[in-house]
Parts: sequence; C-alpha cells; structure tokens
Amino acid sequence: MGTMSRARGFTSDNASGAHPAVLAAIADANSGHVPSYGADPLTAALDERAAEVFGDDARIFPVFNGTGANVVAVQALLQRWDAVVATDESHMVNDESTAPQLVGGTRILTVASRGGKLTTDVIAPVFDGYDGTVHHARPAAVSLAQSTELGTTYSVAELSAITHLAHTRGARVHLDGARLANAAARLGTTLRALTTDVGVDVLSFGATKNGTLFGDAVVTLQPELAEPVDRLRKASTQLASKMRFVSAQLLALLGDDLWRENARRANAAADLLAARLRGLGVTPVHPVEANAVFIPVPPERLPAVVAAAPVLAWDRTAGVVRAVASFDTTEEDVDALVAELARHLG
Amino acid sequence: MGTMSRARGFTSDNASGAHPAVLAAIADANSGHVPSYGADPLTAALDERAAEVFGDDARIFPVFNGTGANVVAVQALLQRWDAVVATDESHMVNDESTAPQLVGGTRILTVASRGGKLTTDVIAPVFDGYDGTVHHARPAAVSLAQSTELGTTYSVAELSAITHLAHTRGARVHLDGARLANAAARLGTTLRALTTDVGVDVLSFGATKNGTLFGDAVVTLQPELAEPVDRLRKASTQLASKMRFVSAQLLALLGDDLWRENARRANAAADLLAARLRGLGVTPVHPVEANAVFIPVPPERLPAVVAAAPVLAWDRTAGVVRAVASFDTTEEDVDALVAELARHLG
Amino acid sequence: MGTMSRARGFTSDNASGAHPAVLAAIADANSGHVPSYGADPLTAALDERAAEVFGDDARIFPVFNGTGANVVAVQALLQRWDAVVATDESHMVNDESTAPQLVGGTRILTVASRGGKLTTDVIAPVFDGYDGTVHHARPAAVSLAQSTELGTTYSVAELSAITHLAHTRGARVHLDGARLANAAARLGTTLRALTTDVGVDVLSFGATKNGTLFGDAVVTLQPELAEPVDRLRKASTQLASKMRFVSAQLLALLGDDLWRENARRANAAADLLAARLRGLGVTPVHPVEANAVFIPVPPERLPAVVAAAPVLAWDRTAGVVRAVASFDTTEEDVDALVAELARHLG
Amino acid sequence: MGTMSRARGFTSDNASGAHPAVLAAIADANSGHVPSYGADPLTAALDERAAEVFGDDARIFPVFNGTGANVVAVQALLQRWDAVVATDESHMVNDESTAPQLVGGTRILTVASRGGKLTTDVIAPVFDGYDGTVHHARPAAVSLAQSTELGTTYSVAELSAITHLAHTRGARVHLDGARLANAAARLGTTLRALTTDVGVDVLSFGATKNGTLFGDAVVTLQPELAEPVDRLRKASTQLASKMRFVSAQLLALLGDDLWRENARRANAAADLLAARLRGLGVTPVHPVEANAVFIPVPPERLPAVVAAAPVLAWDRTAGVVRAVASFDTTEEDVDALVAELARHLG
Repeated sequence: MGTMSRARGFTSDNASGAHPAVLAAIADANSGHVPSYGADPLTAALDERAAEVFGDDARIFPVFNGTGANVVAVQALLQRWDAVVATDESHMVNDESTAPQLVGGTRILTVASRGGKLTTDVIAPVFDGYDGTVHHARPAAVSLAQSTELGTTYSVAELSAITHLAHTRGARVHLDGARLANAAARLGTTLRALTTDVGVDVLSFGATKNGTLFGDAVVTLQPELAEPVDRLRKASTQLASKMRFVSAQLLALLGDDLWRENARRANAAADLLAARLRGLGVTPVHPVEANAVFIPVPPERLPAVVAAAPVLAWDRTAGVVRAVASFDTTEEDVDALVAELARHLG
Repeated sequence: MGTMSRARGFTSDNASGAHPAVLAAIADANSGHVPSYGADPLTAALDERAAEVFGDDARIFPVFNGTGANVVAVQALLQRWDAVVATDESHMVNDESTAPQLVGGTRILTVASRGGKLTTDVIAPVFDGYDGTVHHARPAAVSLAQSTELGTTYSVAELSAITHLAHTRGARVHLDGARLANAAARLGTTLRALTTDVGVDVLSFGATKNGTLFGDAVVTLQPELAEPVDRLRKASTQLASKMRFVSAQLLALLGDDLWRENARRANAAADLLAARLRGLGVTPVHPVEANAVFIPVPPERLPAVVAAAPVLAWDRTAGVVRAVASFDTTEEDVDALVAELARHLG
Repeated sequence: MGTMSRARGFTSDNASGAHPAVLAAIADANSGHVPSYGADPLTAALDERAAEVFGDDARIFPVFNGTGANVVAVQALLQRWDAVVATDESHMVNDESTAPQLVGGTRILTVASRGGKLTTDVIAPVFDGYDGTVHHARPAAVSLAQSTELGTTYSVAELSAITHLAHTRGARVHLDGARLANAAARLGTTLRALTTDVGVDVLSFGATKNGTLFGDAVVTLQPELAEPVDRLRKASTQLASKMRFVSAQLLALLGDDLWRENARRANAAADLLAARLRGLGVTPVHPVEANAVFIPVPPERLPAVVAAAPVLAWDRTAGVVRAVASFDTTEEDVDALVAELARHLG
Repeated sequence: MGTMSRARGFTSDNASGAHPAVLAAIADANSGHVPSYGADPLTAALDERAAEVFGDDARIFPVFNGTGANVVAVQALLQRWDAVVATDESHMVNDESTAPQLVGGTRILTVASRGGKLTTDVIAPVFDGYDGTVHHARPAAVSLAQSTELGTTYSVAELSAITHLAHTRGARVHLDGARLANAAARLGTTLRALTTDVGVDVLSFGATKNGTLFGDAVVTLQPELAEPVDRLRKASTQLASKMRFVSAQLLALLGDDLWRENARRANAAADLLAARLRGLGVTPVHPVEANAVFIPVPPERLPAVVAAAPVLAWDRTAGVVRAVASFDTTEEDVDALVAELARHLG
C-alpha cells in the first residue's frame, strides 16, 4: 500500500488515518455476534462513559460523520417553522452542501462572525428583530462551533454568555464540536466544562478528526432531547447497524483521555508551525487557538503555494491558506512545511 | 471484551462482525496521510475495480449504510414530483423510518409482493393507471431487492422482465442489493449479470452484511446518474471524510471475490438450517434462496421461542420467526439453533 | 362569456362555480382597507363563528385549498419520524401528487379500505405491528375522510370507534372534510357532531366544493394544535394576504347554514341520479351516501361514455365512472345525464 | 360591513381590496360548469394573453399567492444540491417563514444588497468562490425582485447585466415580480422588457398587490421550465381547483393594461407622499422608485408613530417606517397620513 501513503499533510485533520488504539479497539470489538443498532455491550459502556464525561443527564448517540451529527442535532431543536442562528463561517453554512435544507428543511439565520465566533452582540439583534409573527422563522436555536472553523476558541465565559442569552430568549444551544477536543485541550478544561456546565443543550461530538476512522456522535445534555435525537438519527440515515464498531472507537478516545492527548499533539504542532512562521515574519491571520493555522499568502503566489505545499487554499482573493495539524503530525512535518512555504514567501 | 461476545446468532446478518480480511485491509490502509473525501488511491482503485465488476459505465460511490444508499440512489431517479414503485415488503417501506420521506421527499407507490418479489403483473397496472396528470405522482422508478426481504431471489429472466417493463414505460430501475452477493452466489452468476446486464440503472450495493464493519455503496450503471449520486451522497450526509477506510473494505470484498465466498458460506448455513428443519417436519414459510430462513412457529409459542433462540420475531400474529445466517455461521451454530427450536416446536 | 359556459356536469363538484351568496359576501367584504393576513374583522367573526359551530376549543385557519389543508393539518400531528395511517383510497394518497412528502416529509401508512372507509380492524393491526423501535415510523395519526372518496359516509358510531382506538393507542385523528357538509347533511347532524363530539383532533374543512370560489380551512379542535397549524399554514405557503376574502366566503357558508342547504341539494341530486339509474337496472357500485354516484359501465364502452357524458373515468379496468353532483345541479341536469347514459348502457 | 372598513392605510399594498373590474370578472366567470384545474376557456385565454405580453415562449401558471409563486419557481431552477443567490433584503429570505426550506429544501446564498438590489459585484464573488466540489451547494440560480423590497427599481441595463452574469456562469434567473407592475409603470416599459427581453428565465408575477383578491402566477419564459413548474405547482399545494376564478382575475389585469393603470396610481400616490415629506424636510431613506416610501423616524418616537399612523414599523433600531400606496390610495389618504406624521416629526 506504499503507493498511497505520502508525507503527512496539513490540508485537513481528516487527511490523517486512525490512531492505533482505535484500530486495536475495533479489532477487539470484532468478537462474535452481538445485537445490532446499539443494543450491544460496547454501546452500553459508551453511554455510561458519556454520563461520566458529560454529566448524568447526557446520552450519547453515535453517528457516521459530522454533517450527520449536525443535521440530527439541529433538527432536534427546531420545529418545522423555526430557524437556527449560526455564523457565516460555520460548517453547516459553508461545507455541508444542502444537507441542512434537504434533510431537515432547516432555515439558518446567518450572522457575521468575529474571528469565526458568534458573539452576543450579533445574536441579540436577531432575537430583538423577531416579531413573533408567522411570517418570520422563529429563532429557536443557536449553533456555534468550538473550536471554530477559523481555529479560534471560545472561553468558558464567552460560551456561558451565549447560552445565557439564548436561553433567556427561549432558544436552545447546539455546539458543533467537530474539534471540541482541541478546544478543551487548549483551554485545559474537561469536555463537560465546555458543554454541560455552560448550558449547551446538544452537542455534535467530533471524533473522526481526533483519530477514529469514521464515527462521531450526538450527545444530548437535556433529557427531553434524547428521544428526538434517537429517532432523527435513524430517519436521517445516520444509524449504524454494526454499532459496536462506532462505539468501540469512541470508547477508545473517551475511555482514558486519549482524545486529550491526540488533541494536545495536534495543537502543539499548530503552535510550532505558528512559531516558525512568526520567525519568518509571517503572522497567522487568526489567533492560533486550536490546531489550525491560517497563513497569509500573496494572492498571486497562492496557486504555486497550494501546488507545492500540503495546505488548503482558503481564500484565493484575500490570499489565505489553511494548515491543520493532526494527532500524528510531527516536528519533521512542520519543518518540511515551513521550508516549503519559506521558498514561496521568502 | 469477552463479556460482550456471545454465541453466533441468527437475528440478522448484521449481528456478525467484520471479516478478518476486511480488518486487515483497514489496518493496511492506515498508513500516513491521504486526501480525504475520496481523492485517495484506494478509492481510485475501487472505482477501477467497480468498472471491472459491473462494466465500463459503472461508477461506485461508497456510503455509510444501506438506508443511506437507498435514499441517495432513489433520489437520483426521481424529480420532486415523481414516485418509486416498491413492494410492501421492501426495506425502504418497512425499515427505514421516515428516511425516504424526510431526506428525499420520496413518494413510494407500494404494491403487493409475491413472496417478497415485484412482478410485472403488479407493476404494469401502476403504469396503466397513471394518467399523466399533475395530480398523480409520476411512476418514474421501480425499486426491487435482490435477494428480497423474504429471502427469495429473482432469476435473471425475472429481473430482465421487470427492467424491460420499467424502461418501456419510461421508468428507471433501482436495485436494493443489500444482499446482492447472496443472490449472485446462489444463482452462480456474476454481480454484473444481475445488474448491468439485466438493465438495472442504479444499485445499492450491500457490503455490511457481507463482512464489512460499516460501508456500502451506490453503484451507478448509467453515466448520467454519476453526478446526481455524487452530489446527493454529500447532501444526504453519506459522504465519509476518511473515505479510504470505506474503499479499503469494499476492495477487500470485491477485489478477489471474497464477497462470493462470504455469501456462499451464509447461504450454505441457511440451507443446512432449512434441511434440518425439514427433518423435524418444519417447512420454511418462503423458499430459502439466499441466507434467510422464515420459520413457522405457533403464535402462542413465539414469545418463548424468541426469548430462548437467537432469531427474530417476524410476524407475531401469523407466527413466523426469521433466522439469517452470516458469513461466519458454523454448522455448530445451526445445530444449536435447531436443538433449541426443537425443544419448542417438537 | 357564453362560450365558456356549458351544461352543468358531473365530473367533479369543483366544476361548479361559486354560490351567489358567496360572491355577494366577497363584494361586501371589498370595502376599504383592512389589515392583512387575518387581522381583519371578518376573520375575527369567522373565528367566533367556528367556536359556535365546532365548540369553544375550535380555532379556524382559512387556507387556499384542500391539499393545502391536508398538508398543514397532518404535519401538525406528526413529528419528523412519525407516520399517518390512511386508506389506499384517500385523497392524500392518490390525488395530491407528492405534496405530503415534498412539503411535510410525510410518511403515510396505507391500509385497505372498506368501501372507502377506514375500519378499526384495519387500523388496529398497524398499531399492533408497531414495535416502538426507531426503525419504524411511529403511527402517530390516523386520517380519514368524511364523506369518503367513494361517496360513502361514516356513522357517528364508526367515527367514534376510530377516534377511540387511535387515542387509546396514542395517536391523534385528522378528518379530511373536503365533503364534510355532504356527510352532515346526509346524516342530519351538526358539523360538530361529526368532529368535536366524536373526538377528531384536527379537521380539513372543505368549502370549495360546497360553493366558494376558492378557500377551505384547517379547524383545530385541540387548543395545543392552534399554534402549529398557524405556523405551518405560513410555512406551507397557504396563508392568504387578503384573508378577508377567504373568511367572507367561509362565513357565507357557515354563518347561516348555507353549507347545509348546498350540501343537501347536491346530495339530493345524487340520490335522484341513483334512483333513475336503478330504474334502468343499473346499481351504483358503492352506497350513495353523499353526493357522488359510482356507475358501473362495461369497460369496452367506458371511453365512449366519458366522451359523451360529463362524468369521470374512475376505473377503466373494472369499468366504473364517477358522477358527482354540485349545489347547483338540477333535475334537468340529472335527466340529461341519465338519458345520455341510457344510450350507452341500454 | 361598515365596522370593518377603515381609512385606507399604508401598512402594505395588500391591505387594499380588489379592483372593481376584478370583481366583475369573477362574477362574469361564475357561469355554469367548466372543467377544473385549468382546463377551462378562461385559463386558455390567459395563456394566450401571457404569450402576447411576455413572448411566444411564455407559459403562465396561476397560483394562490406570492410565497407559493416563489417556492414553485425557484424549485424549478434547482436540483436538490443547488442553491439560489438572493439578497438579505429579499422576501424569500425574510418574509416566508421556512417555506423555501420546508417545501423545497431550498438553500439560499444570501448576499448584501445595495438599496435592496443585487449587483453583479456581489454576485460574481459567489460564483468565483464556488469550487465545484460536492461540499458546496452549486449556485444554480439568482433571484432578484423588481421592484425591490425597499421600493427601488432595477433599470433594464442593471437587469441585463445580472442575467448576463448569471447565464455566463451557468445559472438561471428568477424574478420575484410581486410588484413588477409598479416597476414597469415607473420605467414606462412593457412587462416583457423587464423579463423576457433581459433574459429572465422564470417570473413570479404578482397580481394580489395590484388589485386581485387573491391569485398570482408563475410565468415560465423558457420552454423547458413549463413542465417542472406545472408539476411543482401541484406538489407544492398551489394548484386551484376552480382555476377559472384565478385566471379571470389575472385576465382582468393583463387583458387591457389595467395592471399598468393600477400600478401607476399607486406609484403616483407614493410620489406625492414623498414630495409632501420632503416639503416637511423629511427625506425618504431609499429612492422612491415604485409605490413604497421608507420614512426616517427617530427611534424613540417610532412606537407612537406606528400606533397613530397606518404605516409599518420597518426598523425599530434605526428608526424607519414603511408606507406603501395601493391602486386605490387617494390624495386625501396621503394628506391625512402626512398630517399625522407631521404631528410626530414636526
């Protein structure tokens, strides 16, 4: 299989493979027959572990991928006439094709972001502007990502302020945690401190970018959301038959804080990259608060940069490329990338 | 993990785990970084293999599960005002919650089955009865399963008759091949002989029940369906980021006819079970033409049977339980089941 | 406009125009400016009238047409993972294209009808067969039509039995009352006796076939359904801006029992037609219990019949045509039709 | 009905009633029985008239209301994985609840408006930024309103530039013409000059605000859109059974340029209002190019203004109220409004 491997890249943290412990957990789970669709011991163990990690009211519903998690979780918060508030930089707005609309009929009220983040001062006017009539979709949910699509991270205080505002206005909060592990590792908090404890109602818990080969989860933090999520997971095509193999992977990450170690490594690689770039006189476009580094590149050189270096063209007009570190990114990978970039940016 | 394993059962062929060769392929694929979402060498190799297996016009689009495959494939055949004809015994009618409606807005015209099969004489009246007006959903597609939900299998001639009728009436044909391997193994044909060669337009190719840990595929057999399926896969939440791990599994099955060997074993176990039952004077409810055996049980004893034996309560009123064999079902498993059933039915 | 008028026909009760009192009410309503979208005095008066007619908990939500009423009403009863039980002869199954699926993502569980009617013995097995798992859409609603698409009418006892069964099983009941007036006129009951008093939860109240030029209504009979219907009416494109003109028409019918007089006339014309046919030795296919007569015609003569007589080809295979009387159908119209039919059937 | 009439107001142009000629046309159409669902002579006459007005390729499909027209028209332009580009001031974004998403699964790519208008420089980056991958909804349509929600009007050159850009990029153009008549009257053009001749592909033709009691239309200007619109009209609940009454109203407006006279009157009243306001030293917020005037009001006085004057609170934060003139707005109405406003703004 040597022909398909290549130098570890930075185009996305899903270019990496699976962590060895995850593969081992799958192999371990591959023992005999067990009931399908989640009625197996590993899924029961995962549910118990989720309650330890996120609190007693938490229930975990493994799904296939992040788009699936978001589509299921947001539907659970919305009646057919409701809308969810999200930034114009969010994944569900930019990177999920028409999935929110096609699957859930979801109306998204997009607001401007500040460095990828929602802020109470952009959310409040949405609630203020809603007149309660049937003409306007009711803003019944707020969705935010931790860490954000721009590699920034909300503080606990920022999260609390947003959930407080939302709840005060009768809306519930969805957290897109495709990279929640990176945020928690960065902030030095538990996962619970960034979710349950700040008032998040439902979470898309990302695991694929953290080291599974596939498999994320919806975690409900309010008991009344468990049944809707359970039903919507099936109706949205996100229920795995051989569930044990998803649960086993999630348990491998959540069971003994492998999630934190993987995230810490990715974050550290991003920090190293940012430091090296600053050494070259290049300042990242956004604060490096997770595992992503947005690098300014003169627009005219951007095509050459993305052709030569394993980074993603993020904004061809403004001149920005994105580099995302994975759990297995090494110092050598960073050095090689910096050397390549230096050739173009020097 | 010993606590979670148990005797191999017959409730479904998704109670089994993954074939060792599939696990090995995953481990082999877990080498370094590769582009995500299908732009990797393994997915390219799978696409080439699919052309060998299904014909030059075939394109393969790995998805997460069978419901996802069906939802994507059928949407590709239908305009928003069209309907698909399927039997009242089909998976998309009975076992996919509201997924066809929620995701695709799909209108299904259900017709009666003959032993789980569509026949031209139940389809023709649907076309005859369609008056072409806007009041009625246009029957633009026919969906059938091979093998069927009742464990029966269409002959090549039966398939050809249905696709011919559909095409004559301006409709296209979807084959739900969740257990296509079992049918091909039973009939001794290639996969192509049951799909491309009989005029199927788009296929849900089942692999999970054949030995993957997750992962099926939509296979388009008409070039104009490739782009719709590609787009709908993403919009329906069925696009894996670390695609190589789905492709690797599918390649493991399709690469050297492991699919056939796995299916053959499951079919043989079902045959053995049927033979043993007949030896007890119990005749299966439907012909055993794949890997499923439907066993008549007096309704009053059914609860005890399903409590004691690893079979599925199929029809509590009529008194039928279902036993499905997997690729790893052994003669000992069959003997143990028969012994248990004998205690209840003797 | 003489060129467009023609002899009053029997193809449908929407071939007729508007009752003069309805037109007068529209003209009367066309006075000055009033708030739009229902915040006008006529709509307030209609809401009061609806409470008198249907009971204090009733709220009326005028919509444009019957398909709109059904789509809005049924959505209000279903979560995204639920299904509604209806007969294979129902309008929402046969005559609304893909509207239930496209607009509401509605899963319909079709059951066989008895003369167009649902019966408890076909509904009960649907509930019995539901195992509560996420794989199967939950039967959360039952929809039935009064009078039915086959011109038959439920007795109060039949209605009560169905709503009792549904409620016992945790489902709610939608009544498609496109021709509710005809049923009430036939049975000599109030509208309330066929809806609120027998436990119907939400009603599609038909007015177009009873003499409006357009305009039907959803009537909620349970307070908690009012807001969902109000919101869904807008989200399903069924909210009229100049609402006063819908309300005025509905008031014209409901205000002084014009609805009953119109229905009575249509029913009487159907009865006359049935009597004349029996005089010719022709027995209607279904009991004539509302304003529709289904007439057996030898299949080979059916094309000639529908070419010559203003009736609808209902079943070309079995040989059935449908004749529906309107509020303005006269004895002369009936006689002319019978004479024409006699030429073909004699 | 005296209690329900009140002084003609300016909250919206749907607070007005129906033009007498429209009522007369309805009464005239109410003659005998005709085939339903559009197979009547008046609808045929309307279709012929539409070809005269919009060009030989035009087909007209009457619908119930503007939201319905938009939902049907836009669906006809989009595959399930496509998106439509529209401004953040557009009706489909702000005033149709979740109808675009619920009915059509429509993904709207919102861009900033310039005075309510789309411009090529905000559209072009959407196309430039689309990378063609499945992750992003394909911008397959552009929707703009003429006149706009802010009462501004595109010139022919502006329209042509937008349709040219869209077509060059493979997208089609929808025109929301809820107030197209006002724009054509203002610009002194034909309806065709603003639609067919500038390359619009499909039109929502507004008639309700121009003097019908209900009833708008989708007009297809490309032959291949006729069937999709015909089918989607039914599937989106927008097909009237007694179609003659919609067609009669549209014919009354389109038959002899009553549409223009009605629009001209409304525009003139808006102009008069704007002139009077300028006389008071109050400059409208947006150019008055149709029949709407946006009036600056100190935010602290806005509640009192909307309580006393028949205008709509448009922006409570910035301090803007909206006054829209109707076909029947008189000089006395304008004077009364100005006098009331003067009391608050003087």
